[in-house]
Amino acid sequence: MNGAATGAYIAVDWGTTNRRAYLIDADGAVLDTVRDDRGVLAIERSDYPKEIAGLRDRLGALPVIAAGMIGSTRGWVDAPYVPCPADLAALTAACATVQDEDVLIVPGVCLTGPRSDVMRGEEAQVLGAIAARLAPADALFCQPGTHNKWVHVERGRIVDVSTAMTGELFALLRDNGVLKGMLDGAVADGTAFRDGIARGAGATDLTVALFEVRAAVLLGALPAEDAAAFASGVLIGADVGARDLRDRDVHLLASGPLADLYAVAITARGGRVIAVDNQAGFLAGIHAIWGLTR
Amino acid sequence: MNGAATGAYIAVDWGTTNRRAYLIDADGAVLDTVRDDRGVLAIERSDYPKEIAGLRDRLGALPVIAAGMIGSTRGWVDAPYVPCPADLAALTAACATVQDEDVLIVPGVCLTGPRSDVMRGEEAQVLGAIAARLAPADALFCQPGTHNKWVHVERGRIVDVSTAMTGELFALLRDNGVLKGMLDGAVADGTAFRDGIARGAGATDLTVALFEVRAAVLLGALPAEDAAAFASGVLIGADVGARDLRDRDVHLLASGPLADLYAVAITARGGRVIAVDNQAGFLAGIHAIWGLTR
Repeated sequence: MNGAATGAYIAVDWGTTNRRAYLIDADGAVLDTVRDDRGVLAIERSDYPKEIAGLRDRLGALPVIAAGMIGSTRGWVDAPYVPCPADLAALTAACATVQDEDVLIVPGVCLTGPRSDVMRGEEAQVLGAIAARLAPADALFCQPGTHNKWVHVERGRIVDVSTAMTGELFALLRDNGVLKGMLDGAVADGTAFRDGIARGAGATDLTVALFEVRAAVLLGALPAEDAAAFASGVLIGADVGARDLRDRDVHLLASGPLADLYAVAITARGGRVIAVDNQAGFLAGIHAIWGLTR
Repeated sequence: MNGAATGAYIAVDWGTTNRRAYLIDADGAVLDTVRDDRGVLAIERSDYPKEIAGLRDRLGALPVIAAGMIGSTRGWVDAPYVPCPADLAALTAACATVQDEDVLIVPGVCLTGPRSDVMRGEEAQVLGAIAARLAPADALFCQPGTHNKWVHVERGRIVDVSTAMTGELFALLRDNGVLKGMLDGAVADGTAFRDGIARGAGATDLTVALFEVRAAVLLGALPAEDAAAFASGVLIGADVGARDLRDRDVHLLASGPLADLYAVAITARGGRVIAVDNQAGFLAGIHAIWGLTR
């Protein structure tokens, strides 16, 4: 590849609905960035060579390393999950190569045993954050989104993954069924959200708590405009409250309104929130893996 | 009304999607029955007089007493909820009358206080089952459906109501989101269903357990054809496992495949299942209320 002699490469965080591509020099510095909505759901499997060529047209004729859903059965090349405990070396060893294209695909991580869980993309961010000393080598990470990921790292190795379908469930309940039309209001921190956290945290009857939203509005016990915040509090409270966070540091790998709500819930449950830049984590993780492949 | 001198009347169990109307004589015997899909979702508010006239054409020009969603804000006439503790006399006293039509509408029951909950229709079945000595005056009832109702009765008074959105949640997850396409298989009792019960019962991380369905199938830990049964087990297990059922009688006010799955889960959690005929309960409850209004 042209330019490969410089040690520069293209790194792609290739998710379900979006992708972020970075031109990175040999020292790990970002020289250029492309962000768009060409996530794996928008791309046919046969179109990936064209997509890669498009990125090279924009960022340079360079080798590519990609992480995230591109390595899933819904993506381009299936990069089988690395089982826990997983560190950067294990991820590197298991990268899938698309040699005709000079593309490397970082695998996801799976948990097997009594519980099954999987992730793709978060592993690079988590281990990268540790590599960049944004978090210690023994740490609990939380990455809210449609699916919230809890990732537990010990001595630089991912030992546990737990995916909560919190955001997806809220969206399903908002758009369908008996709560439809009741959850369209604003969700922000406040009494209703915190009451929801208290109701949801540790609850063994989550689906009863969700019906209470409807009953409380019907009975006038909950203002209709607070229903969305209360329901969100119930779901995020259940998510955050499923583990004992008292006096624990929680490394929050996200920013924005949803991350702010998780921070409130984590704090309410006795945890300490430490914000971590997930883009910096991704870049550090990818650069470390890239270095290990050279 | 013609025929009213005989003491006969029409009783209607008027639900969300279906209705059952009965011609009942003065002694409570059922002389004729009409079942159709004219539930409240199929009827405009202004069309109820026509619907009542249609029932009278088929069953006789008699007074009508109706229970269920017809008395809700989505139905014909809002019959405000009777708060717990609620017995047959309280329901009778709070019946809404549509005098021009000679129609009586039985109210629902609500729980207020720390928790809010509501029901419409189940209260007549539960208190009727007790009136007919199909269940004791101190009893726990379970009525599975789209929403499963737990109803706790003490000395013939409903003291607690708990609605779990179990069936609705299963349908939402089957038809949308990341589990779509994975939950279309048969749900029947078996190892997968019982493993699901064990995972869901008492769980404080229900949405994590639901994501495990996907992860376990991806990782080959759960056969794809067992995913629906496992997920159903998780949800029903969480529902049933939210209360301590050891050595308790649970009066199951339903029959059919879903009731059978609940019976398995209740038994697995140490409860004793006592099947109660919900139609017999409804008829006994309505006849008791009808008698109290004379």
